[in-house]
Amino acid sequence: MTRTVDVPVLVEEARAGTSRAVGRLISLVDDQHPALPELMAALAPHTGGAHVIGLTGSPGVGKSTTTNALIRALRDQDQRVAVLAVDPSSPFSGGALLGDRIRMNESASDPGVYIRSLASRGHLGGLSVSTPQAIRVLDAAGFDSIIVETVGVGQSEVEIAGAADTTLVLLAPGMGDGIQAAKAGILEIGDVFVVNKADRDGADSTVRDLRHMIQLGEGTAPGRWRRPVIKASALDGTGIDELAAAIADHLGWLASSGALRQRRTARARDEITALVIARLRARMGDLGSGGALDALAARVVDGGSDPHTAAEELLSGLGV
Amino acid sequence: MTRTVDVPVLVEEARAGTSRAVGRLISLVDDQHPALPELMAALAPHTGGAHVIGLTGSPGVGKSTTTNALIRALRDQDQRVAVLAVDPSSPFSGGALLGDRIRMNESASDPGVYIRSLASRGHLGGLSVSTPQAIRVLDAAGFDSIIVETVGVGQSEVEIAGAADTTLVLLAPGMGDGIQAAKAGILEIGDVFVVNKADRDGADSTVRDLRHMIQLGEGTAPGRWRRPVIKASALDGTGIDELAAAIADHLGWLASSGALRQRRTARARDEITALVIARLRARMGDLGSGGALDALAARVVDGGSDPHTAAEELLSGLGV
Repeated sequence: MTRTVDVPVLVEEARAGTSRAVGRLISLVDDQHPALPELMAALAPHTGGAHVIGLTGSPGVGKSTTTNALIRALRDQDQRVAVLAVDPSSPFSGGALLGDRIRMNESASDPGVYIRSLASRGHLGGLSVSTPQAIRVLDAAGFDSIIVETVGVGQSEVEIAGAADTTLVLLAPGMGDGIQAAKAGILEIGDVFVVNKADRDGADSTVRDLRHMIQLGEGTAPGRWRRPVIKASALDGTGIDELAAAIADHLGWLASSGALRQRRTARARDEITALVIARLRARMGDLGSGGALDALAARVVDGGSDPHTAAEELLSGLGV
Repeated sequence: MTRTVDVPVLVEEARAGTSRAVGRLISLVDDQHPALPELMAALAPHTGGAHVIGLTGSPGVGKSTTTNALIRALRDQDQRVAVLAVDPSSPFSGGALLGDRIRMNESASDPGVYIRSLASRGHLGGLSVSTPQAIRVLDAAGFDSIIVETVGVGQSEVEIAGAADTTLVLLAPGMGDGIQAAKAGILEIGDVFVVNKADRDGADSTVRDLRHMIQLGEGTAPGRWRRPVIKASALDGTGIDELAAAIADHLGWLASSGALRQRRTARARDEITALVIARLRARMGDLGSGGALDALAARVVDGGSDPHTAAEELLSGLGV
């Protein structure tokens, strides 16, 4: 069943700072509601003001604690802060835990903070489609910083680097020495690295390894961003001011170097492409339910055709 | 530079058992050579005879050792056996190590065994496109069993379940107790589970946990496949005969239940869809290089349009 929604009114309320309206709009995104195209068109003129900060790292490195500490630091700068938790293992995400966590979170009663978990879906509704749309809602609603928290496993960490202006990569001593980090491909995606749990054994050598690996990968072009490695302990606040400063520095560098516009254009390009693919997939699904794809697949199994030939036939069926 | 290839001659030689021809054909797949459509069409009538066995598990559980033991067991049944290593961390894969490993492998001089690593690529040439095509080459070349070895991280383990008739999931004691396995989503994809390194502490409890979790997830429908959990030690051959028997049992069940055809049709459907998407992406890339996508993305960044509207415009540009 589709509820009727008054998109212009909700957008106006969200922009006036009503959390409930922001929540309704993100639910429309999360549900891929039919009003989505209208919503996206209504948001467009109000977007572009927010700093989108990706935060990623393996389970156990302290992403939620760091997010909480970062919220406080950004609030101290009088910023309005939104958090999108796309990490299914995050205490911010998922049914039963959410309520408890929000009660624990001192920010819950602060009207300048909005925290929301996004259901992570399969191919069509995953990070690639829902998250950028939810970011647009929060951007248009006037949040200064939007922290997008994802678990750093597989695809999502690469995708978050595409969705964010600034990507923070969290590691913990022993879990993420330089070589492991290089293998996992996280050196490429981070703009700022945080070695959390700095009181643990091996923190200094992890920082040193990481700095070394990063320098090896960095070019010598003048004006490039020098990716900092910050030693932190989010639990007691150590290093968080330095982290907030590094985030601000990176935003300054993005704006002055022209990289901000470049990244955002690339992000828009990816988002458009993902939507085109989703529409074409849906259309192929329609063909499939009409039996065309199934019939072609059966012919391939019987050896009467092959996937390339079948793909060409299906493309003609799509009118392409 | 594109070398001219005589596809019909290569296919004939591959079907006659010439390893060199099989290797050339897989290289065409790995390079996504322009002759690929012709090749796939030439192979089609000869496919469908091989049993495709996926083998997945985290690094360190003993995938390569198990593959070696399995090759021996299948050779004892006079099967011709091919191995595709898609796992970048596998000693079968990757430049320098490959030669050493093949020399170590007693099967290297056996003409009934073919071992090949596939370069794992990004979006377009990844498991979803190259691997099913390489499987087709080996299938048409007359191998009875094709073992596809992948590292069990993220996407690839789910994809291998789509590409294989029978999926083996390897675990080691302590690394993969039931709950961890359930979290990682591997309970859904396995047809046969192997707890390797059975001499280690905790092997029995891992087997017990796993059996329990599997039973919880299994329906009560008559005629369903009861997924076995086999305790093995690939290094000394313990449990390998039982594993080979379970693989044969599963093939028998697939054939008699109709699931074999169903799985292969689903696989062909996925392969066709992936190829259609790849072609459409390429065409969008063409539009992009013409500047249409970039111009649309820039309008989105400026707030003059939104991704949905831009996607619709791009679709009209594709003639869809």
